[in-house]
Amino acid sequence: MTSKDRAATILTVGSVAFDSVETPTGSVEKALGGSASYAALAASYFASPRVVAVVGDDFTDEHIRKLSERGVDVSGLERVKGKTFHWKGRYHENMQDRDTLATDLNVFQGFDPKVPDEFRDASYVFLGNIEPKIQAKVLDQVRDARFVGMDTMNFWIASALADLKSVLGRVDLLFINDEEASQLSGETQMLNAAEEILALGPRYVVIKRGEFGSLLFGSDICLFVPAVLLPKVVDPTGAGDSFAGGFLGAVARTGAINRATLAQGMIYGTVMASFAVEKFSVDGLLDHSQTTIDLRRDFLESMTTYS
Amino acid sequence: MTSKDRAATILTVGSVAFDSVETPTGSVEKALGGSASYAALAASYFASPRVVAVVGDDFTDEHIRKLSERGVDVSGLERVKGKTFHWKGRYHENMQDRDTLATDLNVFQGFDPKVPDEFRDASYVFLGNIEPKIQAKVLDQVRDARFVGMDTMNFWIASALADLKSVLGRVDLLFINDEEASQLSGETQMLNAAEEILALGPRYVVIKRGEFGSLLFGSDICLFVPAVLLPKVVDPTGAGDSFAGGFLGAVARTGAINRATLAQGMIYGTVMASFAVEKFSVDGLLDHSQTTIDLRRDFLESMTTYS
Repeated sequence: MTSKDRAATILTVGSVAFDSVETPTGSVEKALGGSASYAALAASYFASPRVVAVVGDDFTDEHIRKLSERGVDVSGLERVKGKTFHWKGRYHENMQDRDTLATDLNVFQGFDPKVPDEFRDASYVFLGNIEPKIQAKVLDQVRDARFVGMDTMNFWIASALADLKSVLGRVDLLFINDEEASQLSGETQMLNAAEEILALGPRYVVIKRGEFGSLLFGSDICLFVPAVLLPKVVDPTGAGDSFAGGFLGAVARTGAINRATLAQGMIYGTVMASFAVEKFSVDGLLDHSQTTIDLRRDFLESMTTYS
Repeated sequence: MTSKDRAATILTVGSVAFDSVETPTGSVEKALGGSASYAALAASYFASPRVVAVVGDDFTDEHIRKLSERGVDVSGLERVKGKTFHWKGRYHENMQDRDTLATDLNVFQGFDPKVPDEFRDASYVFLGNIEPKIQAKVLDQVRDARFVGMDTMNFWIASALADLKSVLGRVDLLFINDEEASQLSGETQMLNAAEEILALGPRYVVIKRGEFGSLLFGSDICLFVPAVLLPKVVDPTGAGDSFAGGFLGAVARTGAINRATLAQGMIYGTVMASFAVEKFSVDGLLDHSQTTIDLRRDFLESMTTYS
């Protein structure tokens, strides 16, 4: 491995899970999902992702192959006795609202991530949506990370706010959706919500608004990227994690943190999220060329080119 | 008036009304409103608007001054015996959903617009949200318009679809919000909705999504402009009409119809809508300099500049 390759590794810690999803037009049973799976696969087009997660003995070699064939380093994937984390949900007609039908934590209960020695020098880190205390434990194990992005959710904002704020003070960027941004900040206008969140510590916050695009805020930067216009959405699950993976992967590939590279992160995050929702499970992230990716990038850029 | 000035006239036909509005944080009683008022005032920063509308004898000289002081030609404003159209509504906490509490058509009932002879050569026309048959009557009275934009609403889509489709075949651009676009097209994805709407005749369709920005579609063009990020929204009433007025005014000012001028239309429409929602009634559209307008334009452009 050259030093250039080493610079482009991205450590992804979160869930590797089975998802059962019903939408108005189809369904899938216990298919590969989880924040770390989506993020790592999305990142794999730009950098070398390494996953730290826990799965049960029902997690097959075939599941592992889906990750490893895209170049995801799965040596940090702990396989223990028991069942893999299983989430079951049903999307409403609008493909945005959803009901959670089951959350079987299984072996994910008490997940205590151990970052392998050879992963601890990761330059780029993604902390998937797990308990803030566990996110902190991951940060305790990595050294000299150049850029750390994290996700969270309404549940942790409501139940572990102090721990969450503590982690926010240690990361570079928070990925959050607009409802959660309002919940965390107490502000309904995204401009105000972003200001409050930045005051909690992260240098940047990305506010995701699904089909309405996403915003990035920092002290001296404000970017917007619209969502890719799709003729059909098959399964929105994992869109946010795919966004985060594409974002951090694209930033890792450039090796710099500035307005232009953050913008590339926003664009490639958007592109990878658009691929993710076109198929069930992680299948929308498996078979792309740099050309298909760049075509969507070009289209996004053309939509907002005004001259 | 020079011939250049003549080229930049914009005929605005719709309602001039009184609005009573309640929001979670304030209210206003019988203040100047109506689609033609908002559109003409927004357009007035870019072109010379001419209004054709009907008001009652309760419409005072002070109301007229609000329009004429911004250079709006009110010689087509018919003042008849009776009361001015009055709309009363209450916005929900989210500032998007609203309940209509009263729609007193008054003298607007049976509005039969008569376009004055000196207005009939208008190069740019905005047909505000009125009955499609009446919109058609306006088109019968103008000749050689270079560009006609129209608005409509859910009520006409449901109750006068054939007439609406007939008008759509005679205009260049439809302004419509996303819910109405779905209603008109039967499509939930905006890409598909736009395609269906373009098949009905207009060369372009602008789909407005409120705080989420707006999309413009044509056979060979797709543009997106995000909404201006505001710390506070006071009253969303008239945002769509202000968008249309700013859009058509900016296009009229350039005197050409191409990708760049349509993009300017989208941007200045967005800017004028953002001013409109910052105050009750039309007050957000009264006092701007080209500098305050261009500052918002620059910010919008910077949000979507990725290099």
